[in-house]
Amino acid sequence: MTPSEARARDAADPLRTYRDAFHIPDGVIYLDGNSLGPLPRTTPAALADLAERQWGDRLIRSWNEGWIEAPRRVGAKIARLIGASKDEVIVADSTSVNLFKLLVAALRHASPRGTILSETGNFPTDLHIAEGAVGCVPGSRLHAVARNQLATSLDGETALLMLTHVHYKTSQRFDMSAWSAKARENGALTLWDLSHSVGAIPIDLNGAGADMAVGCGYKYLNGGPGAPAFLYVSKRLQEMLASPLSGWMGHAAPFGFADAYAPAPGMTRWLAGTPPMLGMAALEAGLDIWRDVDQQQVAVKSAALFDTLAAIGRNAGLDCVSPADPARRGSHISFRHPDAYAICQALIDRGVIGDFRDPDILRFGLTPLYLGFADVVRAGEILCEIVASGAYRDPAYQARNAVT
Amino acid sequence: MTPSEARARDAADPLRTYRDAFHIPDGVIYLDGNSLGPLPRTTPAALADLAERQWGDRLIRSWNEGWIEAPRRVGAKIARLIGASKDEVIVADSTSVNLFKLLVAALRHASPRGTILSETGNFPTDLHIAEGAVGCVPGSRLHAVARNQLATSLDGETALLMLTHVHYKTSQRFDMSAWSAKARENGALTLWDLSHSVGAIPIDLNGAGADMAVGCGYKYLNGGPGAPAFLYVSKRLQEMLASPLSGWMGHAAPFGFADAYAPAPGMTRWLAGTPPMLGMAALEAGLDIWRDVDQQQVAVKSAALFDTLAAIGRNAGLDCVSPADPARRGSHISFRHPDAYAICQALIDRGVIGDFRDPDILRFGLTPLYLGFADVVRAGEILCEIVASGAYRDPAYQARNAVT
Repeated sequence: MTPSEARARDAADPLRTYRDAFHIPDGVIYLDGNSLGPLPRTTPAALADLAERQWGDRLIRSWNEGWIEAPRRVGAKIARLIGASKDEVIVADSTSVNLFKLLVAALRHASPRGTILSETGNFPTDLHIAEGAVGCVPGSRLHAVARNQLATSLDGETALLMLTHVHYKTSQRFDMSAWSAKARENGALTLWDLSHSVGAIPIDLNGAGADMAVGCGYKYLNGGPGAPAFLYVSKRLQEMLASPLSGWMGHAAPFGFADAYAPAPGMTRWLAGTPPMLGMAALEAGLDIWRDVDQQQVAVKSAALFDTLAAIGRNAGLDCVSPADPARRGSHISFRHPDAYAICQALIDRGVIGDFRDPDILRFGLTPLYLGFADVVRAGEILCEIVASGAYRDPAYQARNAVT
Repeated sequence: MTPSEARARDAADPLRTYRDAFHIPDGVIYLDGNSLGPLPRTTPAALADLAERQWGDRLIRSWNEGWIEAPRRVGAKIARLIGASKDEVIVADSTSVNLFKLLVAALRHASPRGTILSETGNFPTDLHIAEGAVGCVPGSRLHAVARNQLATSLDGETALLMLTHVHYKTSQRFDMSAWSAKARENGALTLWDLSHSVGAIPIDLNGAGADMAVGCGYKYLNGGPGAPAFLYVSKRLQEMLASPLSGWMGHAAPFGFADAYAPAPGMTRWLAGTPPMLGMAALEAGLDIWRDVDQQQVAVKSAALFDTLAAIGRNAGLDCVSPADPARRGSHISFRHPDAYAICQALIDRGVIGDFRDPDILRFGLTPLYLGFADVVRAGEILCEIVASGAYRDPAYQARNAVT
């Protein structure tokens, strides 16, 4: 695609106006919205209102004026992006903490089955938290196998199949319907981590028959650094599962101040402590952008942006590790290169922000709401220049930061 | 104390200038800072900087420019308020979630001892979370007894003594040194919930020989609604305890992306998910006010404000349930009254914001940084008028809200 062809595609893009909803710094092409979504233009005012009016002026009264409902209200806004009913999603804690709650609850429910089946190379916190969860449920264990061994590893011991819908490194996507069916036929529950798919590709949890899910607020949902996360439990399971993190906000009567815990009905039982209202306000501002977005248009544009960058990478001789078939991938593209870290640093120096994933993955988030074809073509040109010139060999690009 | 005496006390108050650090709405006397501290004047700018510059302009690069260190940096600012070394405190999650982590870790460490000893009527989330924690450690149990039975209930089965330093309803304070010693002599660990004491009274965890502690950021620390919480582990125990919430941010090498969990050294292992940076920025702004505060002056003024309101309550015939001895209480005062809820609502209508705790407690936070003697005397006058006139019998004051 030439730059002028790219500009023509952008001019015809039905999603082009959403770019104005975000603050993208001058001189930056931001290909890391799959790690931290950019600032929505409405968020500073939402935060100022939360801080100055709701907290500053209304003080404690705000708990009765919208705060106490926020986890459910914001959860309902996520529900429509993931094919769930509004009373199947709640916003709470972090993805890691939510995963722990659901894993322990599901293992107890599924007993005597005791195996969490997952994939080696899954996003680390999923496996780490699963280790922690099985340590809390006697007789349970974590069994992580390569993707091509998952189907044959589902057996009568499998309590639940824990998969990340879109892989954080490779962008490979599981067929949620097919795997949910396979697990169900096997008598196992499913738990999906949607962190790299929510807001990136269409998701239909109910349609797929998924049992549980968790996901992140700060990637494609643009909720801000460390935004609160969400969890989903299918209505058919809600009253059968209880949280091991039995905090007061998940109590049936939190202000009754009883000594004994009793779980609240519905999704409220998955709350533990007091909702983080600043993070909640930013997440809600990010979600409100999605209100009228046509998710099918997002999927079509995501695929086209990907194909554009994949073609550029192919011409530059880069090794793309992400699937060619749009139905089998998410909205980021990854290339393998032994100098991935240094190339990533050289790109940042030229205003192209992607990221690096240890040990050799160069990853670019292709986020249809605020990226255009001209951005991707320009980023691809710069990438090709850096690879062709060997500019990344500069020692300054080799020194690693704490976080990448 | 007459209004003119109160004004004279305020004029001589060495802490009087701190009032300007907070936004207190016109016409409000805020006696609920023990539930939600008011907005520091610096917080809106700190949030705007976090959102607009750090997130908006610097985007993902901010993780390397201060964010990743925030849980430890902000923890160190709390450490000096609680008599801990700066590497003994970290900011993470909520009080409830932190409590769960420490309880499970401590029960595993203390095995074969398996009892969490605590107090009936403790803050509910402490008991609820303890229920959840013992459900995750086979052979453990929660034993909650009345305060006067605690000493005789410490026995060879006690793994840890979990106490709330200052009681949320009555303001009763445990002698931390004496109870830590008693537990230690008995071979048990101690875990202190500092939610109602941090920023209210001097605390010396190291001096008292306390083993573990958790606490809240949104009360006397003024970190905002649902602010991140903190946890403390004595250096002598740090390498012996590991978190059941083994998320990636507590991993020894979070960006190594290994499948197997390995806890980070020191306090970092108590992190689970990505730090909530908006809440963290607001908490840090709140804590920075405390930098040069003389905590002894806070204690002296707290006691004097309490005695002032206690005397007014006595004259009005109210039943004070908080201790008369300043060394045995926190910085809030509670009165028992069968119409506590309605009185609280009538007070709010007159601009005096305190709170109600089920079933019959009227509670007032006496926060020395932004309250003066004239405020307390005026609030006391209004309280007396409402009680004497029976204005609280108005049906409008009897209808309960969701949260109070």
